[in-house]
Amino acid sequence: MSTSTYTLSATIEAPFAPTLARVREALADAGFGVITEIDMSATLKAKLDVDLPPQVVLGACRPALAHQALLADPSVAALLPCNVVVRSLDDATTLVETFDPAFLADLAGEAVREVAADARERLGTVLALVAGR
Amino acid sequence: MSTSTYTLSATIEAPFAPTLARVREALADAGFGVITEIDMSATLKAKLDVDLPPQVVLGACRPALAHQALLADPSVAALLPCNVVVRSLDDATTLVETFDPAFLADLAGEAVREVAADARERLGTVLALVAGR
Repeated sequence: MSTSTYTLSATIEAPFAPTLARVREALADAGFGVITEIDMSATLKAKLDVDLPPQVVLGACRPALAHQALLADPSVAALLPCNVVVRSLDDATTLVETFDPAFLADLAGEAVREVAADARERLGTVLALVAGR
Repeated sequence: MSTSTYTLSATIEAPFAPTLARVREALADAGFGVITEIDMSATLKAKLDVDLPPQVVLGACRPALAHQALLADPSVAALLPCNVVVRSLDDATTLVETFDPAFLADLAGEAVREVAADARERLGTVLALVAGR
């Protein structure tokens, strides 16, 4: 698992479609439901006729975590669900990248620090599962 | 329009349902499509049997802005679409709150500053439209 400035990510040595399937399985195993889904490349192709690498944004939500976060700070809804992006880098390599929940705590303050840490650990587990570690 | 630490919001003197309808209209008028939608209160009621105030999270996307942002920084996908939350405060008052795109620039850096400023201005217009100003 590597960390950019505001995301957690893992580079997977596998094509896009099987990686997306593994991400779905790993999210389910970690107790996250996928409550939104955007095929970003298809959407922008349809709307603007532009070609982006295949990429899908999965909105992952673990209801108990969402509830705790909303009780601590109702404005957190503006940052839910937690996006997990699966993006093709080339035919053999796929990036899996999530918004880093640590920023929830940075933005929303102490009240959500515990639930953000929990979400971060679970998403880290998801990335490790997908990477086969 | 008021600004919390990481959101833009407007308090509307109208009940939840008509405010939600006005938000949908205002987003359409400003060129935003709603590409995801979560009835957060219904979801958490179904999953956890907890009662939250009525609230819906609309995922707003203006394709040209999303495309510009993704070209500048592909990781921005983890922060798309821009959530617009409509939440009942009481029977006569509703809060409309969006993630402040200014934080996109803070997180993702200079490359997305211009598109984030554009998105911020457009969402500010949406809030003003809903508030009837």
